[in-house]
Amino acid sequence: MTPEAKLKRLKDLVSEVWDLHMAAAVLSWDQETYMPPRGAAARGQQLSTISRLAHIKATDEEIGRLLDDLAPLAAQWNPDSDEARLVKVTRREYEKNTKVPADFVAEESRVTSEALMAWREAKAKADFGLFEPHLARIVALKKQYAEFFAPYDHIYDPLLDDFEPGLKTADVQRIFNALRPQQVALVQAIAQRPQPDDRFLHQPFDVQKQWDFGVEVITAFGFDWARGRQDKSAHPFTTAFSVDDVRITTRIEPDFLGTGLFGTMHECGHALYELGVAPELERTPLGHGASLAIHESQSRLWENLVGRSRAFWEHFYPRLQDTFPTQLGNVDLETFYRGINRVSPSLIRTEADEATYNLHIMLRLELEIGLLEGTIAVKDLPEVWRAKMKEYLGVAPSNDAEGVLQDIHWSMGSIGYFSTYALGNLISAQWWQKMEEDIPDLEAQIRRGEFGELLDWLRAHVHRHGAKFEPQELVQRVVGTGIDPEPYMRYLWAKYGEIYGL
Amino acid sequence: MTPEAKLKRLKDLVSEVWDLHMAAAVLSWDQETYMPPRGAAARGQQLSTISRLAHIKATDEEIGRLLDDLAPLAAQWNPDSDEARLVKVTRREYEKNTKVPADFVAEESRVTSEALMAWREAKAKADFGLFEPHLARIVALKKQYAEFFAPYDHIYDPLLDDFEPGLKTADVQRIFNALRPQQVALVQAIAQRPQPDDRFLHQPFDVQKQWDFGVEVITAFGFDWARGRQDKSAHPFTTAFSVDDVRITTRIEPDFLGTGLFGTMHECGHALYELGVAPELERTPLGHGASLAIHESQSRLWENLVGRSRAFWEHFYPRLQDTFPTQLGNVDLETFYRGINRVSPSLIRTEADEATYNLHIMLRLELEIGLLEGTIAVKDLPEVWRAKMKEYLGVAPSNDAEGVLQDIHWSMGSIGYFSTYALGNLISAQWWQKMEEDIPDLEAQIRRGEFGELLDWLRAHVHRHGAKFEPQELVQRVVGTGIDPEPYMRYLWAKYGEIYGL
Repeated sequence: MTPEAKLKRLKDLVSEVWDLHMAAAVLSWDQETYMPPRGAAARGQQLSTISRLAHIKATDEEIGRLLDDLAPLAAQWNPDSDEARLVKVTRREYEKNTKVPADFVAEESRVTSEALMAWREAKAKADFGLFEPHLARIVALKKQYAEFFAPYDHIYDPLLDDFEPGLKTADVQRIFNALRPQQVALVQAIAQRPQPDDRFLHQPFDVQKQWDFGVEVITAFGFDWARGRQDKSAHPFTTAFSVDDVRITTRIEPDFLGTGLFGTMHECGHALYELGVAPELERTPLGHGASLAIHESQSRLWENLVGRSRAFWEHFYPRLQDTFPTQLGNVDLETFYRGINRVSPSLIRTEADEATYNLHIMLRLELEIGLLEGTIAVKDLPEVWRAKMKEYLGVAPSNDAEGVLQDIHWSMGSIGYFSTYALGNLISAQWWQKMEEDIPDLEAQIRRGEFGELLDWLRAHVHRHGAKFEPQELVQRVVGTGIDPEPYMRYLWAKYGEIYGL
Repeated sequence: MTPEAKLKRLKDLVSEVWDLHMAAAVLSWDQETYMPPRGAAARGQQLSTISRLAHIKATDEEIGRLLDDLAPLAAQWNPDSDEARLVKVTRREYEKNTKVPADFVAEESRVTSEALMAWREAKAKADFGLFEPHLARIVALKKQYAEFFAPYDHIYDPLLDDFEPGLKTADVQRIFNALRPQQVALVQAIAQRPQPDDRFLHQPFDVQKQWDFGVEVITAFGFDWARGRQDKSAHPFTTAFSVDDVRITTRIEPDFLGTGLFGTMHECGHALYELGVAPELERTPLGHGASLAIHESQSRLWENLVGRSRAFWEHFYPRLQDTFPTQLGNVDLETFYRGINRVSPSLIRTEADEATYNLHIMLRLELEIGLLEGTIAVKDLPEVWRAKMKEYLGVAPSNDAEGVLQDIHWSMGSIGYFSTYALGNLISAQWWQKMEEDIPDLEAQIRRGEFGELLDWLRAHVHRHGAKFEPQELVQRVVGTGIDPEPYMRYLWAKYGEIYGL
């Protein structure tokens, strides 16, 4: 075979794996949106079969041989070309996939499916003891998993690498160590000040009108309805079946405006990213977002830096008041703006505001690292959780359902990605700072409800690259430095300094 | 391996194929219901990959070896046991699948995808010439396909067998030869009589109210919403992803009551069949309806024998009048009943009434057989079509869009299954005749809006068997004879004799 033929063959093989993953994504989307309740058992079997076949195809030795054959050639290609990056990323994923034995995957699947059931019961009863032995088994498996990738700098590195390619535990710790004291200081400063009123957000709001307003906002953002759609689900998410078929879901609460409104913008941010990936990367391992942190940098940017800004509401608030005249007719713009930006240390991560969110994340990362290093025992988790909550946020849960049992992630075997949420916040502010340099009237455009230039900037600098570059590399290319907490902290201090008069 | 282990292994292999087919069904359902317009290209690739993998898995030589090994044992099992039937049906499908070369499948896929585009243009322009060369190629491929299964009694047999396992062309010709003169005589007799009024069906009817009324009816039929759902699509269909997840779609017209009302009942009939398959047959080749004709016997039974009966409307018509008081308040039950049963020879099959429908089918079957035998040339089709329409129905199309170009089927390479529609009609009346013997007050139950005993009968005699028995065998087991046109003709003459005073 010629090198061209080998590259073509490699693309065919990875496209087959891609199609299987996309099929699984359609099945999962349906499961969360439209599937009738009794359909779950068969759907589980279908997903299991598809995933198993995808794994078999992804670890096909022919892929390994083609990568070996192409390696000396690829070394001579432009390292930033699609082809060179395809070989690099496929090699990376192939090696990760082939290092983990099928038996281990099956065992992990068994353990986590039991753990998930145990977690549900434990959370319902607020009894960590019911979940403890399952979590201990999961931690043991994660340690075993890390060993497949030995030698490593830190035992947590292989876990983190699954979500943030190339990022090291030491990098995250360095970033978080710089961030933590500033976040804590901010929250403590805010706690000394009077709170803005946000009770007007907690009223009955017609669900269809909330939906329609969300549609109006994300249409203005640039969501392309010919290439995507929005549905309802209990837990909002974004999924892509191709660059031309990206779906978001939203949950609307009848008695609270925040969930639907900001959730829709958040998911739209994820969707715009997937919709912006260069079509020529499709059906290859490069054809999706670069990492969870980069993804979160998009969703958070649209939700917070745009959607909770004063400029945005200067344009949209009159429309929102027209939509809900009885609820908001007497609430002026400034009151609304302060209300949606109220900071209040709370027990539950998913309800946290911009100023406190990262502290929830840091706590989880520290616990995960401690579990993997063996410096924290599973049985001690509830106590460590309470102590750290008190230290960082000044509040402590009265029971484990509001504490260590609140998140589903560990029960599903997902250890290693909480930090991506906080990293996404930091990166969103880095993009923003660079964008303000490149688009001097950015704020004025937003004030006019114009998002075209903003979206074009994101497409050109972030979206179109798909997964060609590792997250740190992508940030470096665009803003000239690595992941850096300073822009985000400046953003928070400026915003909340003004709101709270700090 | 022990025989038990071999049977287990066989089941595992066919379950994998099953899961892939179910995944493809989910992708197709989404394509017809919710997929955004631009998603089509990638969806085509995903479906192509899944179908190719399913074919590779279905023709795995290990299946052939296991079937060979199990054959002598299966010969000693109860021939009606699930296991014996599993081996039999799997053998049948394996041999069909392995006889057709992958190259042929790929070639057919190419030819039909071009033919489909050509057909759309030809129909839009009412120009058969644009479609003719494509149809000629398809007919040539179908002849080639038949040769893979030589020797055969008739060249059309292998095509028919794909849709009606075990049924021969000679069987269908014998049945249709008995049926044709009676159908023609009925239509001619009706043509001499005054027509009932059905203009009241052609008025504006609120779409949501039509939908809700359909839901009320099929809920009464026994459609289980925990195990199924209904959505909208341009072309109504039923699809099953498991015995616990069966989906129907409906099309509602704002200015005509018939489409949504009877379409919903029709698809519900298909769905009740799939919902009634014994769960222990799931994920095997036995886990779905026996054939298209048996399927149609269910949809037609609920749509026509139930849904167009006077007894049914004695219960439901007051509810329909309450729903549409301005449109139907002054239309009495008898007028409504006669209107929905108006017989009118027409050009378009999908709009045909119960009395004329089978004649549309016979015409198509005769053309298909003529094309395969070579006694009808593709270029002569429009003329033959017009002549037969005139002969059977007394009407002839003024252009080919209303004639030979009206159906999509041939352009998709689907030659061999039109007859199943008519066979389904015949079989529905055979079930009904037997049911009336077994449930003496069947009509009184329907008059009370009670369908439980009817559904239980269908489940016990038809549904639960899935594809264990070939269609002719299933009919024989339940009613004691093969497929027979007499009960259907008696039903038509009785019904229309009364309505038209014949």
